[in-house]
Amino acid sequence: MDDDSRMRRWETRTAYPLAVASLLYLGTYAAHVLVPGWPPLVHLVLRSLQFGAWGFFILDYAVRWRFSGEGWRFVPRHWLDTIVVVLPLMRPVRIMNAYDRMERLRGASRLPLHGRVMVYAGVSAVLLGFAGALTVYDHERTAPHATILTFGDSVWFTCSTLATVGYGDVTPVTAWGRTAAVGLMICGLGLLGAVTGSFSSLLVQRFARGDEDAGPPGR
Amino acid sequence: MDDDSRMRRWETRTAYPLAVASLLYLGTYAAHVLVPGWPPLVHLVLRSLQFGAWGFFILDYAVRWRFSGEGWRFVPRHWLDTIVVVLPLMRPVRIMNAYDRMERLRGASRLPLHGRVMVYAGVSAVLLGFAGALTVYDHERTAPHATILTFGDSVWFTCSTLATVGYGDVTPVTAWGRTAAVGLMICGLGLLGAVTGSFSSLLVQRFARGDEDAGPPGR
Amino acid sequence: MDDDSRMRRWETRTAYPLAVASLLYLGTYAAHVLVPGWPPLVHLVLRSLQFGAWGFFILDYAVRWRFSGEGWRFVPRHWLDTIVVVLPLMRPVRIMNAYDRMERLRGASRLPLHGRVMVYAGVSAVLLGFAGALTVYDHERTAPHATILTFGDSVWFTCSTLATVGYGDVTPVTAWGRTAAVGLMICGLGLLGAVTGSFSSLLVQRFARGDEDAGPPGR
Amino acid sequence: MDDDSRMRRWETRTAYPLAVASLLYLGTYAAHVLVPGWPPLVHLVLRSLQFGAWGFFILDYAVRWRFSGEGWRFVPRHWLDTIVVVLPLMRPVRIMNAYDRMERLRGASRLPLHGRVMVYAGVSAVLLGFAGALTVYDHERTAPHATILTFGDSVWFTCSTLATVGYGDVTPVTAWGRTAAVGLMICGLGLLGAVTGSFSSLLVQRFARGDEDAGPPGR
Repeated sequence: MDDDSRMRRWETRTAYPLAVASLLYLGTYAAHVLVPGWPPLVHLVLRSLQFGAWGFFILDYAVRWRFSGEGWRFVPRHWLDTIVVVLPLMRPVRIMNAYDRMERLRGASRLPLHGRVMVYAGVSAVLLGFAGALTVYDHERTAPHATILTFGDSVWFTCSTLATVGYGDVTPVTAWGRTAAVGLMICGLGLLGAVTGSFSSLLVQRFARGDEDAGPPGR
Repeated sequence: MDDDSRMRRWETRTAYPLAVASLLYLGTYAAHVLVPGWPPLVHLVLRSLQFGAWGFFILDYAVRWRFSGEGWRFVPRHWLDTIVVVLPLMRPVRIMNAYDRMERLRGASRLPLHGRVMVYAGVSAVLLGFAGALTVYDHERTAPHATILTFGDSVWFTCSTLATVGYGDVTPVTAWGRTAAVGLMICGLGLLGAVTGSFSSLLVQRFARGDEDAGPPGR
Repeated sequence: MDDDSRMRRWETRTAYPLAVASLLYLGTYAAHVLVPGWPPLVHLVLRSLQFGAWGFFILDYAVRWRFSGEGWRFVPRHWLDTIVVVLPLMRPVRIMNAYDRMERLRGASRLPLHGRVMVYAGVSAVLLGFAGALTVYDHERTAPHATILTFGDSVWFTCSTLATVGYGDVTPVTAWGRTAAVGLMICGLGLLGAVTGSFSSLLVQRFARGDEDAGPPGR
Repeated sequence: MDDDSRMRRWETRTAYPLAVASLLYLGTYAAHVLVPGWPPLVHLVLRSLQFGAWGFFILDYAVRWRFSGEGWRFVPRHWLDTIVVVLPLMRPVRIMNAYDRMERLRGASRLPLHGRVMVYAGVSAVLLGFAGALTVYDHERTAPHATILTFGDSVWFTCSTLATVGYGDVTPVTAWGRTAAVGLMICGLGLLGAVTGSFSSLLVQRFARGDEDAGPPGR
């Protein structure tokens, strides 16, 4: 059996466990941040689950690197996986991938390309926004002179950042909180690009088809 | 008579009443929010009209669901209608649809596709902005430590949100006010996408035509 | 002689005088706002020149309406001219038009389409930004609790609005100042659309040509 | 030997020295701003290196102008070079150019067009952002009533400006700091245009190919 088919078999077998592990990671981090009053034993269990999930991501990365036979080129080529190994909170974004593969296997009637781009962008924005809001809240809540005092403030800050609005009524003051916010800004730029690019390509396509009768979307 | 032609007949008959009901809903909500000093009887009448209009939207949704024969798939496929049933303040956006159908029936000379996209985007931004400004003002005006104190402040906040500018000199402090603001941010992203996509597809089309002589727009 | 050729002759003859009048309007308004200490007689002369220029724009609009033979349809079709008659500060934007026609008559080697879109967008942003900064400063400088106290503050506010950044460290507090700011936001959305659309169409065009060797722009 | 081949030889020979000089300029400016406590002699050496690098850029510009035989048209045609001569902090942006040429000479397998646009945009944003943050910090740190007090504040301000978010919790108060910020806003608009344009052209291209099976990027 060659490396290519091994890679495929590994990917098929790990798709669901990885999706579960990514939600587990996000869930345990959320519980750790939002419910600080739990007994130490529960926190220990949560932390163990979290690090177990992270370990699984690293194992998956290592195995796929090994099978790919690409050497050091694997790192930049699979840059999204590389980021996920370093920042496992971004892992849930890959859930869409597993879902997409499942839909294709089932041969289900799929959305057109812009539809899928919008759904990817929307789901990614919600998952990354939740992870980002948790991270910012985790670092800000105990900082002196902080303005982000509740998780609601953090969600509000995250939404205004992802939409590139940026009111600035509540803003992070710690170095880590600001670093997480810069990550959210980059996601916001990508989200804007996806929304605008979808609209743009939809209109270009309609022109090409001469399909000028189309009404407004969503009908 | 099959379901398809029944659906069409229903849509033709309800187009105008629905457009009127949507403006009625927005108008009565505006009166309720902006003129709080009216006698209780008037408020009762306004509220009745408002809930009557909402009931009509729900009836329309139910009837079209029934005729569509699509089962549960109807809900995601007609997602804009689904949102409107839950948030009837967004209903006026569908007015453009009724207008568009009317124009098509009359065989009127219609705008080109980008023109219509811009007009849809502009009218939707004004209607949603007005509904959003009312909602934000309704929840903020009596909140402690609020900065949005007049309807003018709320309109100013709404404009800066829809344009994704976000000064932050006045911002909502209540959970519902912030939720409405997040809805406005999403509209703002869509508006930006529509403006940018129109420009982009217009330029791509001009290149394809080799129509390089075209002057600036609006002449 | 028919209306069409009359229209053309009128446009050819008025192109330069209108361009001069638009700069005169902007210049006299700038002098009126920025140098309030001049003697009353000078202010009277400036005001007369300003209203004379405005009268000329109205005359041009009326004559072209008359020659067009389009009746009431003239108003929405020439919406940019209609705006300019109501808000003469936006007139300088049309200067690019006169320049473009001149270049075409001279048969000069012209910029490619994105180049021209970028130049139009840039020049319009500078002219509208200057007019907007003047308007905001004019209404804010004497308002109680104003944060825009100098013309520099107003320019800074205008730049942050046109780029849809919106820091909010200085913001208008009067109704007219905020109205002018909303106009600047709309210009900012258009500017963003023009920049993004140019980039997008440039890339689409390069793909179509298979011109993948192209380096970065500006070389 | 004609001017064209002389130009080519000059460009080939100066590519690496110019790249080194641009990094030297940025590095010495960074050292000058961030480590103000060094002895005067070190500062003198840094300043000399900085001005030497600038002189090299001016020499390169002059030589290429001479060889181009384009007269005054050289200035607008090579506008990016012209800006770099006036604002040498923007020079590092041209590093990508040298890298690109090197890759082409090596015949290396290159990224597709959007990939390269994204890499150019990313690297340019990082380099210009670093230069901008240094400039803003240099002018703000000693200003009265300044809110940008540390280099970290300046980086935070720069990120929020480049992403067109603009919180406004820290903002420049000096004329030069604000001027640098306006430059960063223009870069932010360009960055947004590049991200959005890449997305848009990628989607248009996939439609044209009928390549609807493509999964999310980065896989």
